[in-house]
Amino acid sequence: MTYDGPDNADQARLLRLLRDDGPRSRVELGDAAGLTRARLVAEVDRLVALGLVETAGPAASRGGRRSSLLRVAGTVRFAGVTIGPRQIDVAVTDGELSVLARRREPVDVRLGPEATITRTLELLGKVRANLGLGGLTGVGVALPAPVAFREGSPVSPPALPGWHGYGVRDALAAELGCPVLVDNDANVMALGEQHAGTGRAFDDFLYVKLGTAIGCGLVLGGALHRGATSGAGGIAHLRQGDDGPTCACGETGCLEAYCSDAALVREARAAVEDGRSPALAARLAEAGTLTVADVGRATVAGDPAAQAVVRDAARRLGRVLVGLVNFVNPGIVIIGGTAVGLGPTMLAEIRSVVYRRSPPLATGNLPIVLSDLDDTAGVVGAARLASDDVFGAA
Amino acid sequence: MTYDGPDNADQARLLRLLRDDGPRSRVELGDAAGLTRARLVAEVDRLVALGLVETAGPAASRGGRRSSLLRVAGTVRFAGVTIGPRQIDVAVTDGELSVLARRREPVDVRLGPEATITRTLELLGKVRANLGLGGLTGVGVALPAPVAFREGSPVSPPALPGWHGYGVRDALAAELGCPVLVDNDANVMALGEQHAGTGRAFDDFLYVKLGTAIGCGLVLGGALHRGATSGAGGIAHLRQGDDGPTCACGETGCLEAYCSDAALVREARAAVEDGRSPALAARLAEAGTLTVADVGRATVAGDPAAQAVVRDAARRLGRVLVGLVNFVNPGIVIIGGTAVGLGPTMLAEIRSVVYRRSPPLATGNLPIVLSDLDDTAGVVGAARLASDDVFGAA
Repeated sequence: MTYDGPDNADQARLLRLLRDDGPRSRVELGDAAGLTRARLVAEVDRLVALGLVETAGPAASRGGRRSSLLRVAGTVRFAGVTIGPRQIDVAVTDGELSVLARRREPVDVRLGPEATITRTLELLGKVRANLGLGGLTGVGVALPAPVAFREGSPVSPPALPGWHGYGVRDALAAELGCPVLVDNDANVMALGEQHAGTGRAFDDFLYVKLGTAIGCGLVLGGALHRGATSGAGGIAHLRQGDDGPTCACGETGCLEAYCSDAALVREARAAVEDGRSPALAARLAEAGTLTVADVGRATVAGDPAAQAVVRDAARRLGRVLVGLVNFVNPGIVIIGGTAVGLGPTMLAEIRSVVYRRSPPLATGNLPIVLSDLDDTAGVVGAARLASDDVFGAA
Repeated sequence: MTYDGPDNADQARLLRLLRDDGPRSRVELGDAAGLTRARLVAEVDRLVALGLVETAGPAASRGGRRSSLLRVAGTVRFAGVTIGPRQIDVAVTDGELSVLARRREPVDVRLGPEATITRTLELLGKVRANLGLGGLTGVGVALPAPVAFREGSPVSPPALPGWHGYGVRDALAAELGCPVLVDNDANVMALGEQHAGTGRAFDDFLYVKLGTAIGCGLVLGGALHRGATSGAGGIAHLRQGDDGPTCACGETGCLEAYCSDAALVREARAAVEDGRSPALAARLAEAGTLTVADVGRATVAGDPAAQAVVRDAARRLGRVLVGLVNFVNPGIVIIGGTAVGLGPTMLAEIRSVVYRRSPPLATGNLPIVLSDLDDTAGVVGAARLASDDVFGAA
């Protein structure tokens, strides 16, 4: 079921309050939105007529007549989708972005956008069928790629060969018949942090996504900042010098070529070849290959070579972060996406670099923390992306 | 004459439209603000009653009855003040931020905040007396210092010894009886660019202030971004390595210690001592000292040593800018504050570094330009700072 959106900024604010803080009485909602009683009644009536808000059970009495609770209508359903690099992850949420059903399947994005979009639609169909759900109110999609946000299509994505310029948004919207929003995964995960994670308490924060690729989402003044050409947060391919390892993008010396999972594995292999890590050498001999999880386990086990590999990568990232935190002066930096075992060592080194090399005004009270979300940041953030659009002012 | 501010966001938007675009008919104003006729009439009536808006001469006819123009009331008067490091600069503007009168006097900020504030008030009094002006609607002040914006006081300012924590805003507001806003000079100059310079056409831009000190103002999503502790734009004391020249802040290797006017003069003197610049050596012998203006003249004259000094400084700055522009993806970068003669050489080197070392998404179409404002960016920006507050929603 698709909806007309709210008519004005007041209605949009009411919807977002109900989404973020849950059911509330009319009085509480009017107070939170700063609306007069008459204005509130008119705007809520309109939202009910639009099918976006409904009355729920009675509110706790404040004395006097008991008022009923308002909440986002139960027919409002969002889907959050993350695509790739190795799986499709689909969740359907209610209007408060609580996950109702979720399903993941492996995918090879190198088969191209058409095949992957078809798989995504099939998976969405299965989740909707399980829920007995007719239509969706809006769908958000995260891609492991730079995304031209207005066009809803990836731009020269190293991780998605053959996807450049493909209209992911339009292809999905044509099939689904509801608003579809597409953004890059770091931005979407930052929205997930803003909705359900540590970022909830901060108007200005940086979310740094590690893992297969490096990205950064900036929430500034309470809103995701995308920049003039939706390239904001593009730290992966900042060149750290004229030499350095070759990156997935084809250049040399990119930050990502020092800090990605593949970079950690490359350096771990080098440590094995140099005879610096008997532990990783044994693992390689046993399994025939090394993964970033192996590096994480060796780090936790105290293998000095593995720890040095992780610290070196974190130090590179920390040096870049010094400039960024002094530049935008966030309230907190949240690090997410690190493989199991790597987080604490990376965090310690990042903190050390940022605090040592910064003037105190911007970093004196700056917390730098690991994300406390489990693997839902992506799908919840994608649902939030959709809801920000549907619950936005006309 | 002081005013109650507007009652709501619609009134604030109307005031800003009249400030930025000048007098308009009711129809044009309603169209620009997206308000219904009834709502527009009600809000404009209220603004007239508040003394913030008045009717001017007749508008050009669109056919039918001729409507009168609306404009910011002629009694609305802002003052923009920039303090230090070597002069106080005071301008009084009308409600559209056109400068009506301006006066500058040398000052030694090392005499401390009380003496400097007294001098500022005297100068403001003279300008007001010349205009026959009773009171001011609001006053904006730029300081060459990090400023705790909510408190209106400087924070550990290297250029303002003895000013740390001094309540500049409160001291001025107590004497002037109107709203006073205090911010650092780079932020204020960015607001000047936003109002009257190249920045006018961009929602997202960086203004990089060179000169005695290095600063940066970020306008993002159409608004100045100050960050969690009003430390945003703090690029001056980013350390470029563990060694390097000593900075005014006491640390070594800060960006400012490589790129400030004093740094250019230091390197020019070194070139003289090494026998690399006969031109600067002659100037030093003649004048007994070297200034940044001498470096600028030698650069324009083609002195290779002076050009190398300027290019080296610009290259440092360019390397920092690479990270910043990829991070926030601005629509344009505006460089201001360079001494006469230095700008083109610095700009060429900055462009070279930014374009060479960046991935294309954020910088492919990024203009990097010199400011086209004369020396009014500070006072106009300070008046804008005040007007953004007075013309803000309650």
